[in-house]
Amino acid sequence: MRNLADRVWKLPQNEGDEAAEEGMGRILALSDGVFAIAMTLLILDIAVPATTSDTHLPKALLKLWPEYLAYFLSFVVIARFWVAHHLYFRLIGRYDSVLVWRNLLLLMFVAFLPFPTAVLGAHNGSPPAAILYAAAVVLAGTASLASWWYASGRGRLLRPGIGRAQVRALRARSLVGPVFFALTLPVAAFAPYAAEALWFLAFPLTRITYVWFIGRERQRQT
Amino acid sequence: MRNLADRVWKLPQNEGDEAAEEGMGRILALSDGVFAIAMTLLILDIAVPATTSDTHLPKALLKLWPEYLAYFLSFVVIARFWVAHHLYFRLIGRYDSVLVWRNLLLLMFVAFLPFPTAVLGAHNGSPPAAILYAAAVVLAGTASLASWWYASGRGRLLRPGIGRAQVRALRARSLVGPVFFALTLPVAAFAPYAAEALWFLAFPLTRITYVWFIGRERQRQT
Amino acid sequence: MRNLADRVWKLPQNEGDEAAEEGMGRILALSDGVFAIAMTLLILDIAVPATTSDTHLPKALLKLWPEYLAYFLSFVVIARFWVAHHLYFRLIGRYDSVLVWRNLLLLMFVAFLPFPTAVLGAHNGSPPAAILYAAAVVLAGTASLASWWYASGRGRLLRPGIGRAQVRALRARSLVGPVFFALTLPVAAFAPYAAEALWFLAFPLTRITYVWFIGRERQRQT
Amino acid sequence: MRNLADRVWKLPQNEGDEAAEEGMGRILALSDGVFAIAMTLLILDIAVPATTSDTHLPKALLKLWPEYLAYFLSFVVIARFWVAHHLYFRLIGRYDSVLVWRNLLLLMFVAFLPFPTAVLGAHNGSPPAAILYAAAVVLAGTASLASWWYASGRGRLLRPGIGRAQVRALRARSLVGPVFFALTLPVAAFAPYAAEALWFLAFPLTRITYVWFIGRERQRQT
Repeated sequence: MRNLADRVWKLPQNEGDEAAEEGMGRILALSDGVFAIAMTLLILDIAVPATTSDTHLPKALLKLWPEYLAYFLSFVVIARFWVAHHLYFRLIGRYDSVLVWRNLLLLMFVAFLPFPTAVLGAHNGSPPAAILYAAAVVLAGTASLASWWYASGRGRLLRPGIGRAQVRALRARSLVGPVFFALTLPVAAFAPYAAEALWFLAFPLTRITYVWFIGRERQRQT
Repeated sequence: MRNLADRVWKLPQNEGDEAAEEGMGRILALSDGVFAIAMTLLILDIAVPATTSDTHLPKALLKLWPEYLAYFLSFVVIARFWVAHHLYFRLIGRYDSVLVWRNLLLLMFVAFLPFPTAVLGAHNGSPPAAILYAAAVVLAGTASLASWWYASGRGRLLRPGIGRAQVRALRARSLVGPVFFALTLPVAAFAPYAAEALWFLAFPLTRITYVWFIGRERQRQT
Repeated sequence: MRNLADRVWKLPQNEGDEAAEEGMGRILALSDGVFAIAMTLLILDIAVPATTSDTHLPKALLKLWPEYLAYFLSFVVIARFWVAHHLYFRLIGRYDSVLVWRNLLLLMFVAFLPFPTAVLGAHNGSPPAAILYAAAVVLAGTASLASWWYASGRGRLLRPGIGRAQVRALRARSLVGPVFFALTLPVAAFAPYAAEALWFLAFPLTRITYVWFIGRERQRQT
Repeated sequence: MRNLADRVWKLPQNEGDEAAEEGMGRILALSDGVFAIAMTLLILDIAVPATTSDTHLPKALLKLWPEYLAYFLSFVVIARFWVAHHLYFRLIGRYDSVLVWRNLLLLMFVAFLPFPTAVLGAHNGSPPAAILYAAAVVLAGTASLASWWYASGRGRLLRPGIGRAQVRALRARSLVGPVFFALTLPVAAFAPYAAEALWFLAFPLTRITYVWFIGRERQRQT
């Protein structure tokens, strides 16, 4: 049964290479489209202040600071998911239906992020808003991890000649995001502002972990 | 007349191959764009709860469950249309004006889906909302089928060397979605919740049908 | 001066071909993106009826017929602009800053179309709404024409070996849309419903004109 | 440390060329997506007038002129950022993590522009709205400049064989936008309408500067 389902996605031998490359291109095109739209829709969450007098406009614009912050935070979060997707798929050379659906799951959670962002902007400092946000990022991060671990497991769908060190470093990197946001869940429940502050640290943290792993792997090889 | 209309879309001989490939690429780019945007716009249907007190926010967020469900359902429905489009167009190598316009018809119905999704989220358990939703999916499924049956009929626009078994299996698969959603129309009129539960079954059902057909075709060949 | 401005866009000799093709690809990517988004945003104009009782929902959904019609009309209008763009750019092989900015002008008017569509849906049968709609289509059609006439004038930016008959037929075709919608402007002022009915005829009309021109050109050649 | 971070983005030798080109393609695809969506979302800022009587509709439509103007202005502003991006990336042949993140910063500010546009449309002639708008364009322009100066500095990421004259002319051009909009900040504070009028001049001004630099560089070379 499993074997048959796999065959369904296989291409006829003589047309395989060209059509497979085009198919891969479409997966990336759909993904880039969803990432770009999710990033850009975030701005729709910030409503123009209704005040009509010029004297109150500056104050009304400044009062929107939680929404600017939520915009900035979510843009960076989605950008990081895109960068990870970019790094993984540079090494992936083939695809099957499992990878396609895990990738669609990731896109579903990425496209969902504008909603918790809007809740966070409207209810800043509220524990349920912070919990919803962290949980949504954990789900997206887990789907991202699930795509990459499936594609790279036993080198299943990788291009030929990819070094093991790079694969392991990217596997470690894919853990940092969801684990970190999961750890902020209890913080979000009791100190939502502290959780938000921590989230801004996720970016440098990911980078350091990745670099540290690369370093360790290099030492091993020598 | 018919013959003339076809000629209009023909490319000059000496530039044919390169320009035709680019033209095909644009059809896929437009399609991927519409699929990605339709998927991502679904989230705009979920409005941030207006409650300002933190104590009521969790309840307000949980009360949105029909909208989360509608989001998830429609994301999977549109994803399935994209997967089918992907599987069909991997085998299609050329295009004419009929295929272009049938594809645009499909995109029109796909881009329409966020509206019945919003109605379903706002009026959960209401027969007219469920009927509208099922009808919209039937229309999109029929347009998808019409594109593929036209392109694959007598191998009209297929790449050379595509096996008949795969074409027939995909033709069968393209029937499952619209027929299944059409059958849920009377269910939607009398038991809208049951209809919704059935829709979530469409995905595994399609897969099983497709695999069964592939198996039958294989037996025939041997 | 003119000559200098042209040089600015020229690429260094040794890198010309590859970079120029990539540049062309980006013009098409941006255009396909704007077309796809304009098509898909149209659905946001249809608001979910606020009625909460199931008994009134069917009537409320049916009362939206002018908005469904406006959605369908504008989707076909934008689709036709995309098809024209597709047919023109298959023959265009190079670009300069004039073509880039004329194309951006076209995209500006295409991205504007969701607004007159929304006005038409909300104020169906109102002369000013019909005039606004026809005027917006005339502007977009004129920008489309201006792109194509510039690119094809004296074969300026065409791929080598494009037949004159096809260029002239496409030039004639590009006139039909804006001229036809301009002629409906007075109709829109006095009989808005008649104007809407006429717009639905624009599609078959364009096709007939184009085919007729192709026929005439063929006779000339023989 | 710095050196290690750079290595992380390096591709394995044997797969380098193909994967790097694909990676570059995805950066452009994401960018074109964000540009296209930001351009097209601008129209959502113009709300359909709620008047139901046909006699008041023309006046209501005309009263929206500040929003039409804001739409036109922002479309041209974003189009110019896209044209600059297009001109820079035609000459850029490779990328590293610094360029990726500077480009994402640019996209973040471009995706933000629909908000100041909406504020400007709703509060036309208001100093704080004009200041917000000019400041947002300055930020986006600075991010655009930062991408290009980094990529072109010491020819870091350029394709081989790019002439110094073109690089220097584009560096000068990248300064004009942000410097010009920064200079209008005090004007915006005291005479917002004058600032708006000036912004419409930014486009010809950029062009003249660029052409003048090209001319100077040519004289130097001879």
